[in-house]
Amino acid sequence: MRVVVDGEPRELRTVWLEDGAVKLIDQRRLPFELRILEARDLEEVAQAIEDMAVRGAPAIGATAAYGLALAHLQGKDLKEAADRLRKTRPTGHDLFHAIEYILQAAEKGEDPRAAAERYADEDVARCRAIGVAGAKLIREGTRILTHCNAGALATVDIGTVMAPLRAAKARGRRFFVYVSETRPRLQGARLTAWELAQEGIEHAIIVDGASGHFLARGEVDLVLVGADRIAANGDTANKIGTYAKAVLAKENRVPFYVVASTSTIDFSLPSGDKIPIEERSPQEVLHFEGTLAAPKESPARNPAFDVTPAKYIKGIITERGILPPGQLARLRAPPRRARAPARPRKARRKRD
Amino acid sequence: MRVVVDGEPRELRTVWLEDGAVKLIDQRRLPFELRILEARDLEEVAQAIEDMAVRGAPAIGATAAYGLALAHLQGKDLKEAADRLRKTRPTGHDLFHAIEYILQAAEKGEDPRAAAERYADEDVARCRAIGVAGAKLIREGTRILTHCNAGALATVDIGTVMAPLRAAKARGRRFFVYVSETRPRLQGARLTAWELAQEGIEHAIIVDGASGHFLARGEVDLVLVGADRIAANGDTANKIGTYAKAVLAKENRVPFYVVASTSTIDFSLPSGDKIPIEERSPQEVLHFEGTLAAPKESPARNPAFDVTPAKYIKGIITERGILPPGQLARLRAPPRRARAPARPRKARRKRD
Repeated sequence: MRVVVDGEPRELRTVWLEDGAVKLIDQRRLPFELRILEARDLEEVAQAIEDMAVRGAPAIGATAAYGLALAHLQGKDLKEAADRLRKTRPTGHDLFHAIEYILQAAEKGEDPRAAAERYADEDVARCRAIGVAGAKLIREGTRILTHCNAGALATVDIGTVMAPLRAAKARGRRFFVYVSETRPRLQGARLTAWELAQEGIEHAIIVDGASGHFLARGEVDLVLVGADRIAANGDTANKIGTYAKAVLAKENRVPFYVVASTSTIDFSLPSGDKIPIEERSPQEVLHFEGTLAAPKESPARNPAFDVTPAKYIKGIITERGILPPGQLARLRAPPRRARAPARPRKARRKRD
Repeated sequence: MRVVVDGEPRELRTVWLEDGAVKLIDQRRLPFELRILEARDLEEVAQAIEDMAVRGAPAIGATAAYGLALAHLQGKDLKEAADRLRKTRPTGHDLFHAIEYILQAAEKGEDPRAAAERYADEDVARCRAIGVAGAKLIREGTRILTHCNAGALATVDIGTVMAPLRAAKARGRRFFVYVSETRPRLQGARLTAWELAQEGIEHAIIVDGASGHFLARGEVDLVLVGADRIAANGDTANKIGTYAKAVLAKENRVPFYVVASTSTIDFSLPSGDKIPIEERSPQEVLHFEGTLAAPKESPARNPAFDVTPAKYIKGIITERGILPPGQLARLRAPPRRARAPARPRKARRKRD
């Protein structure tokens, strides 16, 4: 993504490996400060994930991939490093997908760093393909509702939900985005609004409770949300508040799409009720930017994700096209690639 | 309500008239500071309503009643004073109801101050009766979800939603309340949690987006919300985010009740689509407790209320019992009062 650092425009990814450190945009500081955090060993990488300096399932996956590469460079045991990273956050699937990707590459004798770089590049390529697949849903004047941040910052670059928006914008289309602020951590207001502002896409921030109002008034044509883990039947875990939007969209006959890379699909889970839901600190609900916003004696509950059953989802926009949630099984087979027919099957499989 | 002022327990109402001023609990300061705001003339009363030092439809109604009494005491024209107050906030019905109540009393030769005191006392009596009517829905272990603040602070005392909770608590029942924080102004986290903590009622604050999660998991037995204006067919305007809870409750077969005094019913409106929805400053959304929480270039939309169609509402809990929304017309007739059979019909009508 193109960002301005110290007055200079610069092309940045969300996460990369450089000078013996995993470097990442510290997403807790945006939109007020663009700071690059340097995680100098595996533990610092794990903490950056736990503390949400980096967040978004695909971005967490790439961070874990680079974290393993860093651990290997520093002579650490790859499997122990993987065990540490698996404990950081339970809900998103890309974390586990990326860890397996690097471990399998290493088992085949590949350098973990090269594997991590390829993993990150593939994430970018998937997002680009998602943009092509999804852009057709965005017409002149389409009014879109989104939630949380499924932008460049939630991936290595480009984003999932943001990919069709960027593609449609590049084609000269004008459209409008309602940005649900996404309490408790305000990734919508802080990150998605920032990305939209950088792209010059018209938008307005709304409180999470206002989504239903705009849907019921016929002021939303399309709902696009990201995903943290998609079960084999299409049930989707995403940021808390997603399920409400899905039910409200269906009630008001507005199409609701999940936008995600296939790296987010967990074919080992038949349905969403087995997706582990992370419950984070109550302090995230009770405080804002360090300021207490509730009586000091009041407790809070803070589930970070909810599960949207497949029946509310019209389609899942992936790098391999838009599928109804019931047809995800088709993606278990490796993609047919017309451009590389001679490529050995094994090598292709590894890429997905 | 019993509150502690300067270390001393004191019985306070939300609003009253004393020493030539309308005095009210400044609800923008709670739960951190209990400050009494003194509005010394009609304009200060109007501004206290506009700036939400006092909020909640019934409390706004009583404040307007006292405001008219104060204007009259200060030799102002009652009708001009009424015109100013009608412009403060458009959505809640009690404001208009209270103004008519005082104007009609004055027309009949009654002292506006005496009429205002009676209006406030009647509001308290209605809330007490709502508590009796609603308490039967709250059993041992019932898990309730509420939104915004429909407590003592939203009325003169006791509250609407809080009335059945206080009554059930007084009967020794244990139950649990999920408090939806209610962005943008956090009346749930700041005011409802404060009232529940004072009463010793078990509760947890959740972000607005989390309601669906707890409903879908079967962790909520009953949804209770207040109302700002109820149309004749039962369609109900209430704090933004209420509609989402109603749809989510129906989808998960959890009963959804509106708790309101009959002063909130607007029989002149056949349905909710004619209820004017106030759109407040975008700054309320872009800031969180005074801190900017979004890019400075991003706009926001801030509808303060939404409309819940009657089909999502199982019942409306009023001081005259629990009615299905389709039967509100029964309340147009004056209540039959067994204790006062000899009372002239006209006098009774005035009271409702």
